[in-house]
Amino acid sequence: MFTHIKSAEGWIKTAGRLPLNLKYIIEGEEEVGSANLDTFVDRNHERLACDIIVISDTSQFAPGQPAITYGLKGIAYFELRLTGPSQDLHSGVFGGAVTNPANALVRMLTALVNERGQVQLPGFYDDVLPITDTERAAMRKLNFDEKEFMRQLGVDALTGEEGFTTLERRWARPTCDINGLTSGYQGEGAKTVLPARASAKFSFRLVPNQDPHNVAKTLQAFLEPRVPPGIKMELISFHGAPGVVVPLDSPYMDAAARAIEAGFGRRPVFIREGGSIPVVSTFHEKLGVDTLLLGWGQNDDNTHSPNEKFCLADFHRGIKASAHLWQEISKIKK
Amino acid sequence: MFTHIKSAEGWIKTAGRLPLNLKYIIEGEEEVGSANLDTFVDRNHERLACDIIVISDTSQFAPGQPAITYGLKGIAYFELRLTGPSQDLHSGVFGGAVTNPANALVRMLTALVNERGQVQLPGFYDDVLPITDTERAAMRKLNFDEKEFMRQLGVDALTGEEGFTTLERRWARPTCDINGLTSGYQGEGAKTVLPARASAKFSFRLVPNQDPHNVAKTLQAFLEPRVPPGIKMELISFHGAPGVVVPLDSPYMDAAARAIEAGFGRRPVFIREGGSIPVVSTFHEKLGVDTLLLGWGQNDDNTHSPNEKFCLADFHRGIKASAHLWQEISKIKK
Repeated sequence: MFTHIKSAEGWIKTAGRLPLNLKYIIEGEEEVGSANLDTFVDRNHERLACDIIVISDTSQFAPGQPAITYGLKGIAYFELRLTGPSQDLHSGVFGGAVTNPANALVRMLTALVNERGQVQLPGFYDDVLPITDTERAAMRKLNFDEKEFMRQLGVDALTGEEGFTTLERRWARPTCDINGLTSGYQGEGAKTVLPARASAKFSFRLVPNQDPHNVAKTLQAFLEPRVPPGIKMELISFHGAPGVVVPLDSPYMDAAARAIEAGFGRRPVFIREGGSIPVVSTFHEKLGVDTLLLGWGQNDDNTHSPNEKFCLADFHRGIKASAHLWQEISKIKK
Repeated sequence: MFTHIKSAEGWIKTAGRLPLNLKYIIEGEEEVGSANLDTFVDRNHERLACDIIVISDTSQFAPGQPAITYGLKGIAYFELRLTGPSQDLHSGVFGGAVTNPANALVRMLTALVNERGQVQLPGFYDDVLPITDTERAAMRKLNFDEKEFMRQLGVDALTGEEGFTTLERRWARPTCDINGLTSGYQGEGAKTVLPARASAKFSFRLVPNQDPHNVAKTLQAFLEPRVPPGIKMELISFHGAPGVVVPLDSPYMDAAARAIEAGFGRRPVFIREGGSIPVVSTFHEKLGVDTLLLGWGQNDDNTHSPNEKFCLADFHRGIKASAHLWQEISKIKK
């Protein structure tokens, strides 16, 4: 955002005026869930009318290799709570005869994904936009270093949906991850308890054109018949957002690529991301406009962590790229 | 224990002497795992030499219906710890490509028991002493009230190993229960984390003649090939004890039944229990002697809970039964 403001100041100082109209939205609530942003966009859709939106909340592909992010995943997040007996029981006296909610929970969660990494909800993949040959080729050309990736994470192997590469899994395929498990005794040592309750938090990362509301409905129908006798189920739906893909063959994408090349001295690569920026689909839905995701960050910026940083050289390159962007966009014939 | 001491005092006051030799072991460490009891029995097996052992640490079958417990379950307790990446990861950026230890955990735990409630460890049932027709008939005669049992526990159905009744499952069939689950985010609301670690505590209740060491070995071999790539497994074995069954057709059992009838005014029923009293197998192994499990408690005594109680009338009936027991045992010809 600041690179865009700086670049606009530069234009005004140098040329007296900008080559196009700029409107800023400064969102101060993103880290607490953007509770008011959708309403704001809804109420101001005439004031916000525009040809293209630019958000800088993504990263470069690698040091020295700028990127345009053209796809983001959506999300559907749930908590599954199972309740058995009215209180924790002695596992010797009652075990094996009273349904154990923890045993039930692991069985129900296991049913969600098969051993080939495929989500088992009926129709889950029906709306998934397939990875195009062009995308596949582009990803291959990125020469993603899987060994270095494993080294950084401290793992000796990677798994995921069968038939897809690591980058395809991370950027373009829907996933299901357990985010938390809670049941029974969690202290040190042993306690022979048959827990009264067991719960899990888990989420699906979605890709275009999957609908998070559909996923929630299908999930409920999938889990209900799997609740064993003696157990009560509660399924809480936390938040949902669809995934987005911005068309690669648009004059705005070309304009952004030229601007970045001018600013960073290197042509950007086109990447997708596994994270979600829900406002991108809000803009698309309410304003009918696509978003350019042009980010200047690096993977080791420690985002949201101690020692968060932003490289000053990238800051200056970003300002330069942004200044070029306004000119490139202004040349597009509508 | 106190009923036995009181009854011995009564004998000495009334008859001048006991009709047999009594040796007491007073164990003050039972609630903290009896760390020294086995060593004590081992070091003193000559001083402890005897014909029969009496332990009063069990309950009557129902109010007004005394019982002799002739079987206890054993136990084998474990903690399974899975480790994936070296720290928690963003589930959007890494989900679906990095093996999630929580996903792996639920799959490995689910493999332990099938949908018919049968433990899947190879050979798990090979050594299980089958329920005899006599036992089955005796259990049926107890008229166990399943509806009342469910009402007390607050559940609307019971499940367990297919082909067995609730009493058979609780008393005479081995089981596998998850005692605790821990992974990732456990607070309120949602957090999109791919957890670095996931762990479970779980235990098998064993019946004669299953060997807890065998179970531990089989479990390790069962789980190892099920650890997915990218995950490290640690299996901790906490404690193990074999189950016991005391022969029903012994003169000591007959003596105890007569003594209880004299003390409580009603013939005892013969029951088993799902809990474990490991010292019973220690005595059998080190002293070569069986144990009579004669308990005067009630199911609603709130053992180990607030408002723990012991019925005074049962205390007095217990003293009377105990006084008769010494006489009945003294009459047994060796």
